[in-house]
Amino acid sequence: MANQDKTIKISIDLMGGDNSPDKTLEGIDLFAKRYKNKNDYFFYLFGDVNKVEKKIKSLQYLKSNYKLIDTKIVVSNELSPMSALKKGKGSSMWESIHSQISLNSDVTLSAGNTGVFLIMSKMILKMLDGIDRPALAGLWPTNTSMNLVLDLGANVECSDKNLIDFSEMGSALYKSIFPDKEIKVSLLNIGSEELKGTETLKNAHAKLKILENMGDFKFVGYIEGNQIMSDISNVIVTDGFTGNVALKTAEGTANFITSELKKAMMGSFLGKISSLLNISNLKKFKKRLDPRLYNGAIFVGLDTPVVKSHGGIDYIGFSNSLDVCNRIIKGNLIKKIKENIK
Amino acid sequence: MANQDKTIKISIDLMGGDNSPDKTLEGIDLFAKRYKNKNDYFFYLFGDVNKVEKKIKSLQYLKSNYKLIDTKIVVSNELSPMSALKKGKGSSMWESIHSQISLNSDVTLSAGNTGVFLIMSKMILKMLDGIDRPALAGLWPTNTSMNLVLDLGANVECSDKNLIDFSEMGSALYKSIFPDKEIKVSLLNIGSEELKGTETLKNAHAKLKILENMGDFKFVGYIEGNQIMSDISNVIVTDGFTGNVALKTAEGTANFITSELKKAMMGSFLGKISSLLNISNLKKFKKRLDPRLYNGAIFVGLDTPVVKSHGGIDYIGFSNSLDVCNRIIKGNLIKKIKENIK
Repeated sequence: MANQDKTIKISIDLMGGDNSPDKTLEGIDLFAKRYKNKNDYFFYLFGDVNKVEKKIKSLQYLKSNYKLIDTKIVVSNELSPMSALKKGKGSSMWESIHSQISLNSDVTLSAGNTGVFLIMSKMILKMLDGIDRPALAGLWPTNTSMNLVLDLGANVECSDKNLIDFSEMGSALYKSIFPDKEIKVSLLNIGSEELKGTETLKNAHAKLKILENMGDFKFVGYIEGNQIMSDISNVIVTDGFTGNVALKTAEGTANFITSELKKAMMGSFLGKISSLLNISNLKKFKKRLDPRLYNGAIFVGLDTPVVKSHGGIDYIGFSNSLDVCNRIIKGNLIKKIKENIK
Repeated sequence: MANQDKTIKISIDLMGGDNSPDKTLEGIDLFAKRYKNKNDYFFYLFGDVNKVEKKIKSLQYLKSNYKLIDTKIVVSNELSPMSALKKGKGSSMWESIHSQISLNSDVTLSAGNTGVFLIMSKMILKMLDGIDRPALAGLWPTNTSMNLVLDLGANVECSDKNLIDFSEMGSALYKSIFPDKEIKVSLLNIGSEELKGTETLKNAHAKLKILENMGDFKFVGYIEGNQIMSDISNVIVTDGFTGNVALKTAEGTANFITSELKKAMMGSFLGKISSLLNISNLKKFKKRLDPRLYNGAIFVGLDTPVVKSHGGIDYIGFSNSLDVCNRIIKGNLIKKIKENIK
């Protein structure tokens, strides 16, 4: 086929996350609705044929450009990574990762158990030369665009070498998603002065100051938690513990504020009336902060890309994580990372 | 004087923070407006007499129950802790801390440079027996009340022993502010399962499970960043690095959302009109999240209490941090900490 080498092959775990496989299939269909040429994509879909077949036939846009592979085992959210590894071989998650080797697919997507997905990916796929640890990178809203934060939880403790690797991989990832932007890397710390923070951060800071002159990115130094959503930097590097606490604190704060706002706006009759009047503005506000926009965390450091959708997100969010898969493949993520870490 | 032993003596650095000494003096006056009997309080005020005298005479409620002590040196916000220590002796900040020894005052309050204030306090005052490191504790809004989080930045790295100390001091502090509430301590982590997190956290978790049976508090285990504002626990323990990042990320997220909301609400003519109609509800919302309500971080671990007001806050916020001073003295904070760490 003429288009073979251009076709993006995406492996998808249909069974992971809430309301799957219906959610995942509807998400794929929404993604299919958006692309122009079905020859540009091929999907390897992993799931229980009995639970999937009826739904898949009802989809409007997903046509012949897929292969459904029957897997009976599902990795549950309750399993610890260790027991999931024992029981998870042959599961939809396992096979969707393994197909990057056996079926030569370009990227794997799952909305299942994050810990298990990370460990399975590390077991099945190869690490990139020169990288000790992979990291989980995610998009974060800003006033004008999106920032990238890593690590969001793959590594509880990190060395300065790890933080440097994250800076280089994060820069490559940001460039593959937003090819036109200048890359500004920062380290998350508790003050912007150079003498603040842990020894690990100080060592990473010193090395990044040297590395930035080699051309891949600009290093803007330390930022604090209140600057993650600012335009000071667009690639924010931290260890997985701090990154995960920051992410969840931001989510918790956003939920708290929007629920307080709802309570206040609906508190009185006049409030309800004027909130109704204001509904288009409130919708605009809600849309701007919609977590589905930022869905799709990328696991970087392996020799092929792996993307994690939020488990609780709906089909629209899932389809956005497919868009992340699409962008990093088209943006040559792995090639860019290899160039950066050279 | 009959009331001498009941009088609460508060030492205040008039010069620290933005718009001081006007802000600090107006805050004291607002606090004075609220109390019933001026004999219940005595203020040692430290600042440059030339810059303070006129304003102090214009105050409406602060009467004779104060002493103004002339200090010419001001600790600037730009100074590093080390150079401030060299130059800061005799400053309003230094003398306000030292007066806990020389004038036997009960508590010190400053809105100045946090790092310098912490180091000066540690130099001048004694540590409590059995405590290795003091911590900075702050109030955090919840749906129904307020939680206490510590450490917010005094210690970049912490041992499990430190985290246990913070649990005991935090419990005492929470009890002194909210005497009627049951205390529920949690450790901030990146998952609620016992096997998650650093070795330090796992060790602290194991020890807290034993300690809770000794009666001071209930230990509810790990929480994640999105649960800081929930009612699962009311004393949240973490190292100073993580606590500071969480605090600033929450502040940044809150600012981001409210500014996006403002933009959305004011985006159209109809939006403006209906926002005006809804103004009382929006005010209620704003009031609920007003950072001035939560102003006043408490430095625990020294043998007398030290309170830090946010530097950028206005006189209303400063007066709220005076209320924190009042509550912890009336609530016998230091006595309660000593009982807890026994």
